[in-house]
Amino acid sequence: MTLVGVLDHASVLVFALTGALVASRSQLDLVGFIFIAALTAVGGGTVRDLILGRDPVFWVAAPQFVLLAAGAAMAVFFTAHLLESRYRAILWLDACALAVAVPAGVGVALALGHGPVIVVIAGVVTGTLGGLMRDVVCNEVPLVLKQGELYLSAAFGGAVAALAFAELGAPGLPALLACGVVTFGLRAGSLGFGWRLPVYRPRPPRR
Amino acid sequence: MTLVGVLDHASVLVFALTGALVASRSQLDLVGFIFIAALTAVGGGTVRDLILGRDPVFWVAAPQFVLLAAGAAMAVFFTAHLLESRYRAILWLDACALAVAVPAGVGVALALGHGPVIVVIAGVVTGTLGGLMRDVVCNEVPLVLKQGELYLSAAFGGAVAALAFAELGAPGLPALLACGVVTFGLRAGSLGFGWRLPVYRPRPPRR
Amino acid sequence: MTLVGVLDHASVLVFALTGALVASRSQLDLVGFIFIAALTAVGGGTVRDLILGRDPVFWVAAPQFVLLAAGAAMAVFFTAHLLESRYRAILWLDACALAVAVPAGVGVALALGHGPVIVVIAGVVTGTLGGLMRDVVCNEVPLVLKQGELYLSAAFGGAVAALAFAELGAPGLPALLACGVVTFGLRAGSLGFGWRLPVYRPRPPRR
Repeated sequence: MTLVGVLDHASVLVFALTGALVASRSQLDLVGFIFIAALTAVGGGTVRDLILGRDPVFWVAAPQFVLLAAGAAMAVFFTAHLLESRYRAILWLDACALAVAVPAGVGVALALGHGPVIVVIAGVVTGTLGGLMRDVVCNEVPLVLKQGELYLSAAFGGAVAALAFAELGAPGLPALLACGVVTFGLRAGSLGFGWRLPVYRPRPPRR
Repeated sequence: MTLVGVLDHASVLVFALTGALVASRSQLDLVGFIFIAALTAVGGGTVRDLILGRDPVFWVAAPQFVLLAAGAAMAVFFTAHLLESRYRAILWLDACALAVAVPAGVGVALALGHGPVIVVIAGVVTGTLGGLMRDVVCNEVPLVLKQGELYLSAAFGGAVAALAFAELGAPGLPALLACGVVTFGLRAGSLGFGWRLPVYRPRPPRR
Repeated sequence: MTLVGVLDHASVLVFALTGALVASRSQLDLVGFIFIAALTAVGGGTVRDLILGRDPVFWVAAPQFVLLAAGAAMAVFFTAHLLESRYRAILWLDACALAVAVPAGVGVALALGHGPVIVVIAGVVTGTLGGLMRDVVCNEVPLVLKQGELYLSAAFGGAVAALAFAELGAPGLPALLACGVVTFGLRAGSLGFGWRLPVYRPRPPRR
């Protein structure tokens, strides 16, 4: 399996877990768990593939991705009550999924020979749109809207790190590894230590 | 006209009626009715076609689909006040639309030679995403989130029935007919007799 | 640059400004501003290109579109507090963006040789879906749902005007100019003078 293939499988699995946990907060049935898990798991990569003109979409060529998401949803349906805080689990699993999905998106765009702007967008889209669809459908506040938290910024930072490595002559494994580490580091720092970016204030403070 | 063509026309017509009725609950004007009706009517099939790489999308090749949706929207604009309960009408019309859209999606994927996983997904996507877009845009609670009701499960069951018939050597009309009957039967049983699936509970009952 | 190219750039710029202003109402950080601005700016044109089978999508072929949106987002982040009413600015900028995006969509569909139904849809989709995505993600009431206001109708009227000019033997610049003027005129009349369409009422008035 290629490196991007491994990353795609890992991100599908972990995003599916977050989708199923959000479904548990909405008290859905098993089929609802599978639907939200699959939407979250393949949503970002599907948009990436449509935009970049990859035909067929990755999971149409390899339906085991969807079976993987369905399996994860079933496991969560029967075990989620064992978790102490499902919301914290969602946040941290989502951070892990982000840290594998961003390099997966970056890797695809680099392999297709795209320039830096499209590489960054492919990374951010793959990393964040699945979770955004999950949150819009389930009426949760989208994580991309959490004010000042490093979420989009973590994805953005990771993608830029990958570009820097590729520019320095180390594309492939080193670049994607750096991408994942930077993405997870920024997101985890925000969740664990409260790292923040300044947010827009209608009026700047007086000096 | 092919069998899938007939199903596509029927699902566009009936989904358009549900979209226009939801627009009436939001008190939109006639152009708003047409927009929501068309979004609902062709939304699911459009996503199906994009994902399966069908080019052109079905209604771009045959714009009369959109005119059909627009006509349905206009009819509802001038007659919806005659209904006793618009919400019940939405639920039952949506059940009918689901029961023709799922076989339409299944039929397309079977004709393209896809395997069982993609066939099921094509059926569920075609059946449910148009209604999901309608509900997200109009701020209604998406039917896919109604806890325990057979909705996604009805679409899923119908698609599996079609697969079973195809496997037994009866693809084409018998498989798609079985698909529609099972989908409508499950959904109608849920609406009329309260058939339900168990939903997730944070804590399982003590024994 | 072609005429459609100029319109695409103008609509990306102005829609990005509206996206950034909506981001300011959600008090996002700078990266959030860029994300919402870019989603608004290229969302409608992306859906248009996917549906019409244009490969690659316009901004993948020309990433400067996204940089333009990002630049607009940064400018708004640092200057939006100078505005007296950000909401009024959003409404009027959105009207301007609509009046350039609808002709951009119409021009693409005409150039591809599509018939009148698809031309109108391409115009309405390009003009309205970016703003719709912005509003759904940021939890604002979508402008397409403002009861009775000319919004969808303005886009529709502009697209029909373009068709009329094309039919009368004046496609190209005159048709697209007429499209923009009619779209802006209808929308501005609605915002400035309260022009409205009758909305659906559950019970018609007694006579």
